[in-house]
Amino acid sequence: MLRPNMHYKELKDSYLFYNIAQKTKAYLEAHPGTHLYRMGIGDVSLPLCDAVIRALHEGVDDQAHQASFHGYMPECGAPFLREVIAAHYRKRGIMISEEEVFVSGGASDELGDILDLFDKESSALIMEPAYPAYVDANVIAGRKIIHLSAGEWNGFLPEPCQEAAEAGLIYICSPNNPTGASFSREQLAQWVSFANETGAVILFDAAYEAFIEDETIPHSIFEIKGAGTCAIEICSLSKTAGFTGTRLGYTVIPETLERNGMNFREMWVRNRTTKTNGISYILQKGGAAVFSEEGQRQIRENIRYYKENAAVLMKALDSLGIWYCGGKNAPYIWMKCPEGMGSWDFFDHLLNEIQVVGTPGEGFGSCGEGYFRFSTFGDREETKEAAKRLIGLFG
Amino acid sequence: MLRPNMHYKELKDSYLFYNIAQKTKAYLEAHPGTHLYRMGIGDVSLPLCDAVIRALHEGVDDQAHQASFHGYMPECGAPFLREVIAAHYRKRGIMISEEEVFVSGGASDELGDILDLFDKESSALIMEPAYPAYVDANVIAGRKIIHLSAGEWNGFLPEPCQEAAEAGLIYICSPNNPTGASFSREQLAQWVSFANETGAVILFDAAYEAFIEDETIPHSIFEIKGAGTCAIEICSLSKTAGFTGTRLGYTVIPETLERNGMNFREMWVRNRTTKTNGISYILQKGGAAVFSEEGQRQIRENIRYYKENAAVLMKALDSLGIWYCGGKNAPYIWMKCPEGMGSWDFFDHLLNEIQVVGTPGEGFGSCGEGYFRFSTFGDREETKEAAKRLIGLFG
Repeated sequence: MLRPNMHYKELKDSYLFYNIAQKTKAYLEAHPGTHLYRMGIGDVSLPLCDAVIRALHEGVDDQAHQASFHGYMPECGAPFLREVIAAHYRKRGIMISEEEVFVSGGASDELGDILDLFDKESSALIMEPAYPAYVDANVIAGRKIIHLSAGEWNGFLPEPCQEAAEAGLIYICSPNNPTGASFSREQLAQWVSFANETGAVILFDAAYEAFIEDETIPHSIFEIKGAGTCAIEICSLSKTAGFTGTRLGYTVIPETLERNGMNFREMWVRNRTTKTNGISYILQKGGAAVFSEEGQRQIRENIRYYKENAAVLMKALDSLGIWYCGGKNAPYIWMKCPEGMGSWDFFDHLLNEIQVVGTPGEGFGSCGEGYFRFSTFGDREETKEAAKRLIGLFG
Repeated sequence: MLRPNMHYKELKDSYLFYNIAQKTKAYLEAHPGTHLYRMGIGDVSLPLCDAVIRALHEGVDDQAHQASFHGYMPECGAPFLREVIAAHYRKRGIMISEEEVFVSGGASDELGDILDLFDKESSALIMEPAYPAYVDANVIAGRKIIHLSAGEWNGFLPEPCQEAAEAGLIYICSPNNPTGASFSREQLAQWVSFANETGAVILFDAAYEAFIEDETIPHSIFEIKGAGTCAIEICSLSKTAGFTGTRLGYTVIPETLERNGMNFREMWVRNRTTKTNGISYILQKGGAAVFSEEGQRQIRENIRYYKENAAVLMKALDSLGIWYCGGKNAPYIWMKCPEGMGSWDFFDHLLNEIQVVGTPGEGFGSCGEGYFRFSTFGDREETKEAAKRLIGLFG
């Protein structure tokens, strides 16, 4: 008799995006023809840049002819892509080798898969508010979860503390989704020292690093001394280069990362050679173009567009005197709901009064109650109008 | 302190393809300029068909313009692809809905990921010789493995037996890799009845179904009555349509598959929405073209080419009176090494005497000792020459 993985019963249903969709639908049914300003979606809106499109077409053409056809790709990634990613790190002064870089089908996929490396008895520390999949993937694995609440008192950037000491895994997402808050070099160094002391391993989600402006904010945890013995970095081209629907990511596991005499980089090679047949040649061709000089210039243009959206919203919130974090080094703005409103009350209020849709903070963990997330991935004119309407409502 | 998943220590290193590469390299160093006839590789050699190439280019073009740009795809697959796959099944008389179809990044990826659905205490039955990843993925998960040996006495097609009764998971790959042997409808029906009686779940690997010629061999386990309550089918476009390096697969989980009150289809929806952000829009566009009338016609042409390679090799073995299975309904031919030779002795003999490279059966499990696998995915002229040389050596 096969027994299912009964941990699925412990998963809480997430109604966040479902509820948003239902409320939005009901509003549109009651007010036909009304235009909504959608500032809630965490998906990009600009198309892929020219350099990437060209490389993808070339990749497809290669698959059309026997002489250039690519069959099975190396499971850990194509050497041509691993090389340019390692070189990209080295340009920033981080000395990693291509053997420490693994190509993935995307950061969310990798965040799920990589849990295979760790014993089920090791607990996971999750700083909330957080991307809900951090919790759910560990519930599925049957792992104990330590919830660490963040709040305005620490700028949504928790410090190491007693309850974190028993954690095996420590999730850090910086710049953060949903709060946009980003750890400074000093703050991150505290976590690295802490992990090296307790023997924990940090899973560093760097999906939003391309949005960092401030030089005091590290793009990579490997900018911090000591991270090579306590961290795995999971990266994505989704927000960096608009790959949300094209899919590609990469992971860095330093060869110096070991516990109990086991080397995690070697374990991951073994895992990938067992559990995948590699990532599409076509997508890896496209991904490599992101790291070319032309690709880097073009993706910066797209990121600049989103950052100008962020500036529009931040200016509005500044003028209203509303507390927020994020926006400067991140594509998300995390604001305090005015007048002590709850997350969902505020959602209803914005929808009904000014037809603006955002994301209630409570959906990212209970300590997100009373806060609200705006995404800056939308259209410029829509963002401007939403900002204007916010000022009209609360000004 | 993080504890690694110590089950990795229980993995045996697989030296199969490494040893083949080393021996081949040594031979070429000793005999510079010699041409080798490579009949060992399980990778396709023909490029993608026109219909797929066109669809992939269209997919790339869609990602170049804001109006047609696709961001995050639905985690379980694009409706346009799930629909054509479900329709493809219905054309064969198998009534499944698109909700029962999941798009994957490839069968090997899915075979690893799907183990998340099952309790670690449930054992896995693996019929050997077998694709080595079946064993290794379950070792990583800490699952007990029941090895069921096949041999010439049962045509490499084991029947249900006492030792299988305690299995939670039953792996069936038909047509089989490496043996090419394929279960008849009656034989598969025995396994389906058995699984329904014992409460096991069959993981049916249908990666080679497109090579079936014989009408008595089922393409899908869902052709068998009762499979809807005991089977998951994992499919691939790798061999069907030459997607080994392009990557795309699909999985069917019937909504009637339940154990302990848990519905596996619903669990897999929850898993995918937690642990992936879907499969590349571009690849799904290309995949959908495989199921078009034009695509089906074109992939049949490629498959015919490989099947003609198989015919060349089978004719040679027939003329030599060498026992083999596979070839007719599968892209692999599994032959008995002549004159009682061991797998690796035979490998060395072919390499040294006629410069033909194949795969020693011992690499797929100890009961593969004394057998040898030829792949039919190579070039026609090379295959003909290899066949001629085999006849010259043993005729």
